[in-house]
Order: sequence, then C-alpha cells, then structure tokens
Amino acid sequence: MSTTSDDAVRAYVAAHYEAFLDDLADWLRLPSVSADPDHAPDVRRSAEWLAAALSATGFPTTEVWETQGAPAVFAEWPCDDPAAPTVLVYGHHDVQPAHRDDGWRTDPFEPVVDAGRLYGRGAADDKGQVLFHTLGIRAHLAATGRRAPAVHLKMIVEGEEESGSPHFPELLRAHADRLACDAVIVSDTGMWSEDTPTVCTGMRGLTDCQIDLRGPDQDIHSGSFGGAVPNPATEAARLAAALHDEDRRVAVPGFYEGVEELTAEERALFAELPFDENRWLRTAHSHATLGEAGYTTLERIWARPTAEVNGVSGGYQGPGGKTVVPSAAQLKLSFRLVAGQDAEKVQQAVRDWVAARLPAGIRHEITFWGATRPCLTPLDHPALQSVVRAMERAFGQRVRFTREGGSGPAADLQDVLGVPVLFLGISVPSDGWHAPNEKVELDLLAKGAEAAAHLWSDLAATWHPG
Amino acid sequence: MSTTSDDAVRAYVAAHYEAFLDDLADWLRLPSVSADPDHAPDVRRSAEWLAAALSATGFPTTEVWETQGAPAVFAEWPCDDPAAPTVLVYGHHDVQPAHRDDGWRTDPFEPVVDAGRLYGRGAADDKGQVLFHTLGIRAHLAATGRRAPAVHLKMIVEGEEESGSPHFPELLRAHADRLACDAVIVSDTGMWSEDTPTVCTGMRGLTDCQIDLRGPDQDIHSGSFGGAVPNPATEAARLAAALHDEDRRVAVPGFYEGVEELTAEERALFAELPFDENRWLRTAHSHATLGEAGYTTLERIWARPTAEVNGVSGGYQGPGGKTVVPSAAQLKLSFRLVAGQDAEKVQQAVRDWVAARLPAGIRHEITFWGATRPCLTPLDHPALQSVVRAMERAFGQRVRFTREGGSGPAADLQDVLGVPVLFLGISVPSDGWHAPNEKVELDLLAKGAEAAAHLWSDLAATWHPG
Repeated sequence: MSTTSDDAVRAYVAAHYEAFLDDLADWLRLPSVSADPDHAPDVRRSAEWLAAALSATGFPTTEVWETQGAPAVFAEWPCDDPAAPTVLVYGHHDVQPAHRDDGWRTDPFEPVVDAGRLYGRGAADDKGQVLFHTLGIRAHLAATGRRAPAVHLKMIVEGEEESGSPHFPELLRAHADRLACDAVIVSDTGMWSEDTPTVCTGMRGLTDCQIDLRGPDQDIHSGSFGGAVPNPATEAARLAAALHDEDRRVAVPGFYEGVEELTAEERALFAELPFDENRWLRTAHSHATLGEAGYTTLERIWARPTAEVNGVSGGYQGPGGKTVVPSAAQLKLSFRLVAGQDAEKVQQAVRDWVAARLPAGIRHEITFWGATRPCLTPLDHPALQSVVRAMERAFGQRVRFTREGGSGPAADLQDVLGVPVLFLGISVPSDGWHAPNEKVELDLLAKGAEAAAHLWSDLAATWHPG
Repeated sequence: MSTTSDDAVRAYVAAHYEAFLDDLADWLRLPSVSADPDHAPDVRRSAEWLAAALSATGFPTTEVWETQGAPAVFAEWPCDDPAAPTVLVYGHHDVQPAHRDDGWRTDPFEPVVDAGRLYGRGAADDKGQVLFHTLGIRAHLAATGRRAPAVHLKMIVEGEEESGSPHFPELLRAHADRLACDAVIVSDTGMWSEDTPTVCTGMRGLTDCQIDLRGPDQDIHSGSFGGAVPNPATEAARLAAALHDEDRRVAVPGFYEGVEELTAEERALFAELPFDENRWLRTAHSHATLGEAGYTTLERIWARPTAEVNGVSGGYQGPGGKTVVPSAAQLKLSFRLVAGQDAEKVQQAVRDWVAARLPAGIRHEITFWGATRPCLTPLDHPALQSVVRAMERAFGQRVRFTREGGSGPAADLQDVLGVPVLFLGISVPSDGWHAPNEKVELDLLAKGAEAAAHLWSDLAATWHPG
C-alpha cells in the first residue's frame, strides 16, 4: 500500500503547473459549444484533444466514443492490485455558448491569465476540473513511486453536458461493462468559497425547453388589428408570468409532486454555513434576493425545485418603436428538479399546462432539450470520507458539506451504474459559470490536482467495496 | 365656378397613370424609415424627392421644413378666387422598418407591380396616398381648364409619423400662420374594402414606449443562482401579462379614465357594415379573434383603447438552450387611445403601474416614443359631405362610414389649427400596413386621384366656411 506525502504532491504539482496551464489553455481555445450545431466540429476536436492528453498522461487505454450527438472520451488505467477499488471520474468537455459582446472583457476562447486567475469559457466548467486530474494522477504516481494508480482508474468525459446530456444515459447503458466501477467521482461542481472548502453531496436535476408560439401568419398593424386578435408575445408573457404564483412558488399543476422536503436537520446544516447575503449577492451580480416564500436563499438554490425564464423573444426588437402585433414569440424555460421529482412527469405537466392556457388562434410547439435527474450522496459513505480527507490534506483545513444548485448527469451515473456518486470540485461561485468572463482560481485548481493525487491512495487504503 | 366631369377626370388619370406609377416607384425606393437613426439620410432624401415632385406638379411654393427630427415638406398653391376655402392636405413620407427576411417575397425597397398591385414599403402607408394628390390636382386642372386649383391648396407631408410624430405638434405651432386653413384632408387612412368604399370619421390615438429592465449585472447560472434572485425576463413577462385582466380589459389603473363610451346608435352603425369575421381574420392573417369582453371586433379596433406588446426580448435567443438568469429584458408596448383619453395621463398611469409592480433588485427605465391624440370628425360637416360626393363620383357607388383603428396626427392638426379634419383614403385592410409585402391596389390608387380631382371643385362649389 502506497501513500502520498502532502509535501511531495505539492512539490510535484508546483513544478509541473506552468506546463499544465499551457495545456489547459490549448484546450480552452477549442469552442466546444454543444448547444450550437455550428460548433459540432469544435466539440469533436475537443474530444480528440482530450483523448491525446489522457494518452500522454499515461492512460494505456483512451477512446473517443460516439453518441447520436457529440462524442465522449473514455480512458482506463488498471491498478496492478486486482483487489483495488475501481473508480470512474466524470466530467465534460463541452462548454456553454459565449460571445465577446455578451460582456466578456477578453475573447472567451483566447484564455488569459490575470492576477492568479485563468479566464476563458470552460476554465471552471468543466475543462479545468477535468484536466486537473491529469496533473493529479502524475503527482500521485510521482509521490508514491507507483507506475499505475492505486485504484483501477477510469474516466468518462462527455460532450453534451451543457445541452442536458441527452445521449448520456444511452451511452452509459451501451458501455456499462467498460464503465463498471465501485464509485463515481464527479469533478463538475464547486466549493462554498475560496476560504471554506467543501464537498458537495447532491445536485439538482434539470429539464429545459423552448416554447414557440405563433399567432398571425405575419406581423400585422397594431392599430388596424390590435386588441381584436391574440398576440403571441402577450401569450408568451402570460405563460412566463404564470410560471410562478405571488409567493414565487412554481404554479404548474403537479410540479411539486414527489418533492423530498427538507428535514429540520438538513435546514440546520445549511444554516451553519457562513452565509453572507450581501457577499452572495455580489457573487450573483444581483441586487436583491427573491424566491419561493418560506425558504432561505441556500434552501432555494440547493434543495428547492425552480422554474426560470432563460430567454424570451418576439416581435420588434430594433431601435425605436414598431406598432405591430407580432406573428411569433418564443420562450426558453428551465426547471431545476430535486430528489423525488420525475423529469418526465414534470415535462408532461408543463406540456399540459401550456396547452390548457393558450387561447384559440395561438398555435404552439414545445421542445424539451433533455432531462438530468437530481441526486443526493449519503453523508456516511466511506468513499465520501476519503474525498473529505483528500480535500483536507490539499487545503490544510476542515472541509464542510454543501449541495449544488446546478445540474449534472450524476444521477444517470448513479442509476445506470448502480454505484454511489461523490463530488470532487474546486470551483467557486465567483467563477462565473455560464456567464461572461468565466474564470478559475489558479491556486484552487492546483489544490484540486493535489486532492486528486491523495484521493487514489486514500481510497485504496481505506475502502474495500463489495 | 368650374366643375369636373367624371369622364374627363377618369380619362386624364388613365392617360397619365403609367408615368405616375414610375414616379411613385422612384419614391418608394428611398427607405425613409424614421424609427431607425441609420436611415435619417434616406428620410431627408425622401423629403427632397417629394418637394421636387410637388414643384413639378405645379405648386408655386414648395419648402422642406426642418424639425428637431426628420424634415417635413410644405407646399402651397393659391386659388385665383380669394373667397375660395383653404384646404390643407396631410400625409407622411416616412415608412415603417422593413427587412427582406421579415417575410417579404421581394425587396421591400425595390417596388414591383404584379397582378394589379404595387408592392413595396410605403406603397399604401403613406407614399401612394400622398402622391395620388399630384395626379388628382393635374386631373382637376385638366378637366376644369383651370390654371390653379378651385380651392387654396396646401400640403403638409411629415417625416416622423411612423415614429409617433414627436415633433409634429411643435412644427404645426411654429408654422401655424403658413398652415392656416378651413379644413384638413388627411390621406393616410383606408376604406372598408375594395367593394365597399367608405369615408373614415375618426382615428385612435397612440402612445408607445420601451421598458428596459435590468436584474443581475451579467447573465448568471440558473442552477447556481436561479430561484433566489429576481429575473428581469420573468419580470418583463409579468408586466406584459398584467397589462390585461382575464376579460382582456387593460388592467393599468386609470387607463380608461375619460374614455367616451360608444352610444347605442354608433354601435348600430358599426353593426350595419358587411362584416365577415372569417374574411376579416384572413386579412388580419390571424386564426381567431380575441379582445375586450363585451365588444365586437369592429368596436374593439375602432372605438376601444387597447394595449399591445409589440416586442419582447431578454436572455438567450440562440439555438438550443442556455440555462442562465438573464441580466436584462425589454418590452415594447403600444397603447391605442380613443376620444376622451389624455395621452400624458395614460403615460403617467403606465409609469406608476410599472414602478409599483417591480420587485427589489430589478431596475427599470421607461422611454415613451411619443403620443398621438385620438380624433373624431362630425358626421354632418358640409366638407365631409363633399368628400363623400367626390368619393361616390370616383367609385360610382354609395359611400359608407368607418373609423380607423390606427393612429395619425389628425388630432394635432385639429387641435393646433382649430379646424375640422376629414379623411380621404383608398387603402384597404389587405394592403399590409407595417407588415411584410405591403402593397397598394392600382385601381384604387387611381380612384383616389379621381376623388381628389373632384373634391376641390365640390368644396369650392358647396362650402363657404367662415
């Protein structure tokens, strides 16, 4: 049994950090935007780039796996001890859309290091957090003197996470034998803050859709016809407005069916965290809190399902005014789901609700982009304790527990592979996921690599699944 | 006193119609879009084109009048009989925005004649209806053998009607002496249909605005922050949805203050018109009627004030989904006003209503583009009877009465100049004002010129104002 010394790991990571950042910057230059069909070739290049990087790290097996959508990358590195646990690291190599004129100070796909931060789309979500594993594994090997990791290590890095992972469950089922493992380590989450390292224990689910409404066959004069025919922009607004009641509860009938309510103990655990509302608001770039009545901000973002308008459009959007009844309007909505909710039932509830609310003369179409299930990890799982110890060694301080308001395919991994899902992530709320000027903190990224280096030794030493 | 023979007028118009259409096409090629600052030079060229055309028609005086916005064109042609009435023709030379990809089958600024129709932005609204006066005047002179019109003729053709005529009242006040007249003839309205010629007796007013809402300082992740901070797209939708109650009455407090309700007689007059809902719906390119409970479609568009969403935008509008809470959203709203309403009071009511409805954390700004007052013409006015006779001679059939749901600066003319406002228009609902593929019917345009030719003789013969 080999262990890693904190100093040896730290020294290795520090010595190889600059080269690691150069590699990461290369990867970030590929605009692997899965939501935009125009970027499909970039998503493929991103997969090929990663496969090459994992080979260079030492993985004996690296493969690009096709899906009906964007390709995923699989890698495998067996341990020389057949009895060692098998761990599957999950991440994604696709990124959110980003355009310079969204508010980026620099080109989103030309990474820039400034004041201890690396800026670029995907720096934190999720390329930085996937790639720290390559540095972590090499530190692990260097510090232990091993030629292979102390666990059977596998990685699955998908290419459609930012599009709701529509083909990921299918991919998991198709390759269940290759992906078989004792636990999944998801590196696609964040910590409480730079000062308060935490381990995430759950993620919300997600299903999102586009609703297209059509009224008149073309834009018509609002003086000649307005007030006498249905207006699709008005109807889109009425739908979006009706999503929430006056208590800001989601008003779609059946939406809350099955929701696991928070226990008093869970609420107390949340309340222990050093939450500063003004500071959180700054991180959220927002000027007030607003949400479901009867819940705190942390409860709202971690443990309550929500409905959000991600985009709305219809009619004239140019300079000045144009007095038309528009012919069409569109809503983009997303629903965050919590444990106990069923995404398919939520989708049907939304479909029924939309159909029932629209007046005659408004035709509509709903397209759901996909569904990601919510998940929760048991706090007392021994592998979770390994993650906590690895993090505490990297950070040199106590690690607390959080949940993640965002969504990932963690639940699919849990469901299809039938194993617990753990989270190892070092992003912080200020990293600006999905926002302009996304960045990652360079010292946290290094600590992520250190934690990963420790984790394989700790798991091998303390956990004997099956 | 000279009169025009129907045959002589008709023959003159027919003989000169092709050249007239060539001239109109030249004018339509100028994209005089007053709402778009980029087109300001085109609006100026349009004014200069018209001034030259009116000079060529024979007006001894033609002038381009500057405003703080787009220029207007004034022309004057005195009668040789000082006792003749003075008539001011009103129209506008600016047009609605138009882009090929809005649904136009041909370039909106490259006019095309097809199957008895002239297609192009402004063909009916309002360049065609301004320009038929040049042909009408020449026919009037030719048929009567006069060297000057039988009335003192003035024209004022403004350049900001499609932007709500923000500087028109000021222009009228500044030039009230030059514009002094006994009646205004507005040629910027339509008729019931190709088969049912009508004279309009009133127009609705208009005030429109843009409401900009800002929430987070940048787009933020809907998983990390959604459900806990206000979303400006949601708030824009809630505003737009709250514009109307469940009876589709406008729900802005104070909006209906002062509204002149329809009398039983007026409702009966409306009900006499051969209204075919299915046919009207086709003209509206719409698939159902919807409006204020308790009123017919004609009542809704002619005599009831309305609120309409002309445009809405916010957040992600590209392909697929993007799970953000958007940083900003925008509404473009227009309000049609009827006699008795005060535009400034309506604007203040909207401002108060918006301010009272938005939650903390959403900052907003409202910009009103302008206000056009509603107006109504007395049915028993002798000059209106002249218009009716002129129309009946051109069309060879009985002329009925309508109102116009659209808005124009007719009320400003009425208020500032202190004279009755009459309407002479030949556009029909299918002309597609403000819509793609705007057109004018060539035979109706010719009848407009004929009616104008008759009108000056009839007014001079029958009306002795003062």
